[in-house]
Amino acid sequence: MTLFERLKNDNQSIWSAYIQHEFVQQLGSGVLPERCFHHYLGQDYLFLIHFARAYALAAYKSETLADIRQATAGLSAIIDLEMGLHVQFCASWGLTEADMEALPEADETIAYTRFVLEKGNAGDLLDLHVALAPCIIGYAEIGNILAASNNANAYASWIEMYASDEYQDVAAAAILQLDRLFEYRAGEGRYAVLSKTFAQATQLEVSFWQMALNPA
Amino acid sequence: MTLFERLKNDNQSIWSAYIQHEFVQQLGSGVLPERCFHHYLGQDYLFLIHFARAYALAAYKSETLADIRQATAGLSAIIDLEMGLHVQFCASWGLTEADMEALPEADETIAYTRFVLEKGNAGDLLDLHVALAPCIIGYAEIGNILAASNNANAYASWIEMYASDEYQDVAAAAILQLDRLFEYRAGEGRYAVLSKTFAQATQLEVSFWQMALNPA
Amino acid sequence: MTLFERLKNDNQSIWSAYIQHEFVQQLGSGVLPERCFHHYLGQDYLFLIHFARAYALAAYKSETLADIRQATAGLSAIIDLEMGLHVQFCASWGLTEADMEALPEADETIAYTRFVLEKGNAGDLLDLHVALAPCIIGYAEIGNILAASNNANAYASWIEMYASDEYQDVAAAAILQLDRLFEYRAGEGRYAVLSKTFAQATQLEVSFWQMALNPA
Amino acid sequence: MTLFERLKNDNQSIWSAYIQHEFVQQLGSGVLPERCFHHYLGQDYLFLIHFARAYALAAYKSETLADIRQATAGLSAIIDLEMGLHVQFCASWGLTEADMEALPEADETIAYTRFVLEKGNAGDLLDLHVALAPCIIGYAEIGNILAASNNANAYASWIEMYASDEYQDVAAAAILQLDRLFEYRAGEGRYAVLSKTFAQATQLEVSFWQMALNPA
Repeated sequence: MTLFERLKNDNQSIWSAYIQHEFVQQLGSGVLPERCFHHYLGQDYLFLIHFARAYALAAYKSETLADIRQATAGLSAIIDLEMGLHVQFCASWGLTEADMEALPEADETIAYTRFVLEKGNAGDLLDLHVALAPCIIGYAEIGNILAASNNANAYASWIEMYASDEYQDVAAAAILQLDRLFEYRAGEGRYAVLSKTFAQATQLEVSFWQMALNPA
Repeated sequence: MTLFERLKNDNQSIWSAYIQHEFVQQLGSGVLPERCFHHYLGQDYLFLIHFARAYALAAYKSETLADIRQATAGLSAIIDLEMGLHVQFCASWGLTEADMEALPEADETIAYTRFVLEKGNAGDLLDLHVALAPCIIGYAEIGNILAASNNANAYASWIEMYASDEYQDVAAAAILQLDRLFEYRAGEGRYAVLSKTFAQATQLEVSFWQMALNPA
Repeated sequence: MTLFERLKNDNQSIWSAYIQHEFVQQLGSGVLPERCFHHYLGQDYLFLIHFARAYALAAYKSETLADIRQATAGLSAIIDLEMGLHVQFCASWGLTEADMEALPEADETIAYTRFVLEKGNAGDLLDLHVALAPCIIGYAEIGNILAASNNANAYASWIEMYASDEYQDVAAAAILQLDRLFEYRAGEGRYAVLSKTFAQATQLEVSFWQMALNPA
Repeated sequence: MTLFERLKNDNQSIWSAYIQHEFVQQLGSGVLPERCFHHYLGQDYLFLIHFARAYALAAYKSETLADIRQATAGLSAIIDLEMGLHVQFCASWGLTEADMEALPEADETIAYTRFVLEKGNAGDLLDLHVALAPCIIGYAEIGNILAASNNANAYASWIEMYASDEYQDVAAAAILQLDRLFEYRAGEGRYAVLSKTFAQATQLEVSFWQMALNPA
């Protein structure tokens, strides 16, 4: 069993609340009101800026050139690929990248992003990656589930991106990296703290969906 | 005009929402339900653990021995004095310090504390102190206002602590330090970013009061 | 006058000791013993790993997407271009990249790299970039001087890299960025501390050349 | 066997070079020239400022209130006790605390202090404490050895401080904390990296003694 599976199994209830959140289900069925998706995408754009910073922090905190390279690849993927989809969607609504960068951050956006970054600063590379896992790996899981049942809808390109081989590979690499980091940075005595970090991060993802479902 | 007054003036609306929040007014008049105060105190205890860490971060980020000493004094004040009041209140409700340390953190507690700590990590000592200011200096302002109008109520010892000369001196020193740090670390070109930090931190304080008023 | 020129003018003596160091002159004239260059290149490889981490730290500490992108470009340039030259040289001596990564770090390598990284952690993006400046911009200056007087020698490809338009553009961008960061992060009151950082970083570069000239 | 004993055993050669350094032996026998001790004390004062910052960083990086309290006690001990001895010595030579704070830092002072702080920033509380261990625990060992053989000399008060029960208790607590942190943060897979950190930190201590023995 991978570390990720273990973390997920030990936090099943909150994990399900995240993966099967009402926002996700409406997005999959296509009934999600556009203003909710619009709100989500704006906040997610701000979110990704801080996630890019989290990958940069991972590169800084790396002890080997291999880990620096992997984190840099993740950083570039966010800046070049993932944000590209947002920019493309937003352009179709008449929003520029600068408009999005200037949006006020919702409390929920602040909560999750700063939790991750602060966990990374206070702890080590493993703490940082465990805090990032619900996002990186969870989105791959969501993408997979929605793609399997999806009848093409307005949100198909979002679903396709996270269901794509490219993104699935990123998530698979993240799962492997967690195991590798646990092996050379941690031991059984650290599991409880990591599981708490995972649960808190997942809870903050749930709150992020909830915020997206209820635009102010 | 001090930097703090300028920040407050430029963010009057959110500052008033914080200082005159319903939670504060009910606390002052004594009508606040005990379970709200109880909930607040538990979350504030977790909050203070991270605020102690923020002062420790300030000591680390100091460039002079004088700044190290001032931050260490702040750190000791939180650990020894401010948390003491919480422990005393909680003991009267049959809660131990360990019980409080084990409480689940509310999203709102995470949001403000990690925002402050992350701002401090990403920026310098001035960024950190501007993020801390709504808490440190705002509580002194609230203590003063409530003490002026207070007819002794169940929350009198809370009000007295923040209205005390000792706490008022801490807030006055924080105001001076902001001016000193601005003088030797910043310039006019930096004001806009600092004002945004101040506004975000104050908004997160408002959300913290709101959470306290609505225990789950 | 740019901030960089001002820093250089106010620290002329140590700056000259760095730019005109015996190691640099022997490298330019080609009389530098190969074992010195070999030793230098090995330590510089370790140095670059930490410099890549410094650019990652800069990306983390950025407040705008534009700054994140600029730092990421710098990070990629080190990993992909600058280290490539080292790998190429070392391959010609029968050294692999893994051999180099496993070399023991000289005290002088530790001193400069950790000084820069720690300055960046304790301070803000400007502190970090001022600590990086003697390296980034100084190497461009050295490359220029040596290229102007160079009769092709064994070290020509090293000189060419730092004299190349590509590297000169990196240095020119760094000079502009220092001015921009000073404008929006600092003011005159901060200059003295920045000048001290610049002087210390340059002194540590001098010690690095000296170490390279005297392999153990 | 404690983690500290294991680290020491696996790095015996460099550990002996540190504990039995010529500077230490001359200090013990009293033949150390006063200008060497004077030089040492000035640099050690700067060193302690950064060590105070390292304890502050440890408080920030703590996950429990107990660890925050222990780090804060260490921070206060440096500021209030250990630096007090330096101030007292220096006063007898006509040097003020401000004079010492303004001394230029030697490369060797920069190297060790920034190595420790950067290791702490990049890694977690255990990485930080392993980097601090040669200093904290090594000084207790040196104090013990010198006190056992000491015929009262000019440096007796220095020796007495590090041989005192108070300082020995600090070192004993540090040894226990290493074991506790290893238990709940690490595992066998991490030992090699920790041992390398320990070896590098000890090497930097050797260089610090050497610098003290050879005042510029």
